[in-house]
Amino acid sequence: MNQIFYPRSMVVVGVSEKADNLARHIAENIIQFGYKGELFLLGRNEGTILNRPIYTSVAQLPPALDLAVILTPAATVPGLLDELGAHGIRFAVIESSGFSEFSKEGAILEEEIYRIAQKWDMRLVGPNCIGIICTESGICTIFVPTAPEEIPHGSISLVSQSGGVVLTCIDLLAAAGLGISKSVSVGNKIDLKESDYLRYLIDDETTRVILLYLESIVEGRQLVELTVQSPKPVIVYKSNTSQASAQIAQSHTAALANDEGIVNAAFRQFGITRAMTFREMMIYSKGFMLPPVRGNRLAVFSRSGGHAIIAVDCASQFGFELPPYSDELIEVAKPFFRVNVIERMNPLDLGTVFNFDAYPILIEEAIRLNQADAYLLIFNYRRETIPVARAVAEKLKSLSRQYQVPIALCYFTETDEVNYLEKNLGFPLFSEVYEAVQALAASRDHFQRIAQRQTEQNQPSAVSLPQDARHKAHWVLSHTTSAVLSLDQAMQVCEAYGLPVAPWAKVYNLTQAVEVSARIGYPVVVKAISEQATHKTDIGAVALNIAD
Amino acid sequence: MNQIFYPRSMVVVGVSEKADNLARHIAENIIQFGYKGELFLLGRNEGTILNRPIYTSVAQLPPALDLAVILTPAATVPGLLDELGAHGIRFAVIESSGFSEFSKEGAILEEEIYRIAQKWDMRLVGPNCIGIICTESGICTIFVPTAPEEIPHGSISLVSQSGGVVLTCIDLLAAAGLGISKSVSVGNKIDLKESDYLRYLIDDETTRVILLYLESIVEGRQLVELTVQSPKPVIVYKSNTSQASAQIAQSHTAALANDEGIVNAAFRQFGITRAMTFREMMIYSKGFMLPPVRGNRLAVFSRSGGHAIIAVDCASQFGFELPPYSDELIEVAKPFFRVNVIERMNPLDLGTVFNFDAYPILIEEAIRLNQADAYLLIFNYRRETIPVARAVAEKLKSLSRQYQVPIALCYFTETDEVNYLEKNLGFPLFSEVYEAVQALAASRDHFQRIAQRQTEQNQPSAVSLPQDARHKAHWVLSHTTSAVLSLDQAMQVCEAYGLPVAPWAKVYNLTQAVEVSARIGYPVVVKAISEQATHKTDIGAVALNIAD
Repeated sequence: MNQIFYPRSMVVVGVSEKADNLARHIAENIIQFGYKGELFLLGRNEGTILNRPIYTSVAQLPPALDLAVILTPAATVPGLLDELGAHGIRFAVIESSGFSEFSKEGAILEEEIYRIAQKWDMRLVGPNCIGIICTESGICTIFVPTAPEEIPHGSISLVSQSGGVVLTCIDLLAAAGLGISKSVSVGNKIDLKESDYLRYLIDDETTRVILLYLESIVEGRQLVELTVQSPKPVIVYKSNTSQASAQIAQSHTAALANDEGIVNAAFRQFGITRAMTFREMMIYSKGFMLPPVRGNRLAVFSRSGGHAIIAVDCASQFGFELPPYSDELIEVAKPFFRVNVIERMNPLDLGTVFNFDAYPILIEEAIRLNQADAYLLIFNYRRETIPVARAVAEKLKSLSRQYQVPIALCYFTETDEVNYLEKNLGFPLFSEVYEAVQALAASRDHFQRIAQRQTEQNQPSAVSLPQDARHKAHWVLSHTTSAVLSLDQAMQVCEAYGLPVAPWAKVYNLTQAVEVSARIGYPVVVKAISEQATHKTDIGAVALNIAD
Repeated sequence: MNQIFYPRSMVVVGVSEKADNLARHIAENIIQFGYKGELFLLGRNEGTILNRPIYTSVAQLPPALDLAVILTPAATVPGLLDELGAHGIRFAVIESSGFSEFSKEGAILEEEIYRIAQKWDMRLVGPNCIGIICTESGICTIFVPTAPEEIPHGSISLVSQSGGVVLTCIDLLAAAGLGISKSVSVGNKIDLKESDYLRYLIDDETTRVILLYLESIVEGRQLVELTVQSPKPVIVYKSNTSQASAQIAQSHTAALANDEGIVNAAFRQFGITRAMTFREMMIYSKGFMLPPVRGNRLAVFSRSGGHAIIAVDCASQFGFELPPYSDELIEVAKPFFRVNVIERMNPLDLGTVFNFDAYPILIEEAIRLNQADAYLLIFNYRRETIPVARAVAEKLKSLSRQYQVPIALCYFTETDEVNYLEKNLGFPLFSEVYEAVQALAASRDHFQRIAQRQTEQNQPSAVSLPQDARHKAHWVLSHTTSAVLSLDQAMQVCEAYGLPVAPWAKVYNLTQAVEVSARIGYPVVVKAISEQATHKTDIGAVALNIAD
């Protein structure tokens, strides 16, 4: 998959000189993002875009380019893809829409595309997507004009089922001063799926944190297994959580998608950090950009008493302890305070400290004295303190890096200044006490889970599964075309793992039912097996306690 | 209390020419905020501030000024207050700290101040606070330099137990484009209390929405009674919710302050909108600045399919219905769509509508057709669409005002542009789908409660209380010095309201206990009554099932 994000050569298909041509925007974006490989443009009519010629036939291209990005009317895609395959291209991003998401005819086109891809052993991104971004290689296939400064380079990567959400996340990451490494809009995912991208990003060296936006979890098991193995934080924003949205999303995976209880339990158990809003995605991302929080002790320094009390509430809510400060630290603090007696209390109220140089001095001393596992500075100030507050932020950023200790900065001042710092400090900055503590807690939970996993891996498993359980279950699962297991398949999986099930059989008509019932013994229960009816009780397709 | 916010004449006490003199900042702020009344400055040394003389004796001032703002060392305050009282001043804002929050000596000073105020029949704000703001009269007694543009005029008023929180809220309100009418930092509230300010603001014509930041609820009953009577939304951010923070806040009202269950239940029952973060305070404020949401039907229009699904989740979470759009509306929509068949589905997916003029046209038509009680437009766009998106926002702002219908705008684009619009549109703008729906839900809940109250007031009460219940209960409550009712007091209140209680008596020694037990009948329960022990079980002060 590296060839998709780091192609040595590529072609954009569908380009014309027209100002509103979407493939033209893709080509221009790639050029402006500084793509260093060979870039070719293909269209119906000759022309030039930023001094590059538009070719009109696949035959004009060099053979075996690394990647094709296609944005042409849906009906033209199968033919083009076949030509490109024949010309040696093995990876394609199809951005065109008008496939299964649109109509039955589109679904047929989509199947055709899949067959062609299989014929040429091609891997596909999409269709019906805004494609990929790799800030390192300079690829940006978004089909609206996008400037490189809108997508700063960094170490967060994103996989999203919605193109619109990719754009929202990019804007928010940029505003939060969090750079992007890679992004992919999966679209109708006829070939490459979330788990494929996730697997790649877990191994990708430039990715430190992975964001997933999902509307349905088609491959829950794979996703979970991958996340369990991932040392990198995976933050998931899973929408489509209500009956109503399932209908809107026309999700064919309503069963798992809707069962919020299962999703939440799985996420918790397997260490996926779940965001409930875009903002939470950013909060957690910021938390993971700090050095890891490796324990439960939080040290708070606050300029305002009110904010200090809020910090204590939040610490309590997220399960942090606030150990009292040591005498050594208080000795260092004394000269800065207006008063002679300072409580060893954590949070330390800096209300009477007007020399702000004290802040980094105190926090560095606290780090040296190992007062806590994470540090939080709450600094509220007015306009005239802006230069000093920036210097404090810079100093604490250095300390966090030098000591590899998480220091969460929570700044309250004019929002323009907060926004400026968030975007430009090059270090996470929070603007709400709750969110700062929430971010630290996410980091703590993640790294505690990793530590726990390592401990568990060194111990024999308490449950011994039947030796062939995994194999049998896999056989059933690999023969499922639907994302929802039918009743008989579910029973087989349960049996494979040694779970006790009542005697059962799958029957196709009344005669068989009577035969089997006699063998099993009455009373029996009859349940309908139908892909159209996962919730059987709702439609009266379950009959209980049937006697002979 | 009008005299505090709209004084015709006032004096700032403690002013000097020194650059870092805090009272000087107060005087300068008041001048720069355009205060139109007579302003006098008083200090220890003569001088001038912005061409105004600093007087050095109270005798030099005209008699009976409307208001004094005092920021001098704590020890000097009683003497000064007495002089000012003698000179006919009846209202004072005392910003000095060093009182009961600081030391025992400070607490004695504070009592002295209170006695002096009573002697002169003066009303006091503070001490230990940053005083008041009234953007209409041009009063800003914050003791740090503050420019008028930092505190835009508007219709939201704020009462806060923390001065730092006042500043944070002001910054956030300004950034959200929400103007401020009045603000008060209550400080140690030796005289005027939250309920006094709340009562004033409920009647204040320029205040539309009231924000309260509380660390302790000393007068829970009054607060609740006031809110129940308030047609204006009251948004409360109540901190100090944990055992740990209660200790930090050294709250003498730990019982109620800590019992989150009671606080939440009371807030819900009596229609107080509770914010859990600063951000939520702003979200709810935005919601209340829209025309009221008077029902449960939400109409969503979204440019992105992903965001539409998120909107459905949020609608479901906050109990909104999404009625399908009517055929009439779909007929109006058709010409704007690329496709011929449009689902009547709500949210309407505007993904294929590239003429953004359609947005206000469709929403106006939906309003005319009474499709919903609230409207939500989710608009995500890139840089090149900024001018058009601004025009759409302006148009929808007009429609919301023209039809008096709530239209929540949720914009996703470069964050700089979102911030710009939030601050300058003059109409609430949201940047997260969840928050937009949350805001609409708060408005709906508030106005439904008001409607319900009105219905109830027109009907006879279902429960008839003992006639003297209120009187008896009030007698008990008014004889309580602690904020926590002792066991016997609580029993009396219950009895007054006709609630059944077990036979009980308050005894002072073992002999009495045995006597009373004989009368009541065994087995009995013994509970200790002590101001030091509200949680009796914890300290073993409850003995159950004692036989004869």
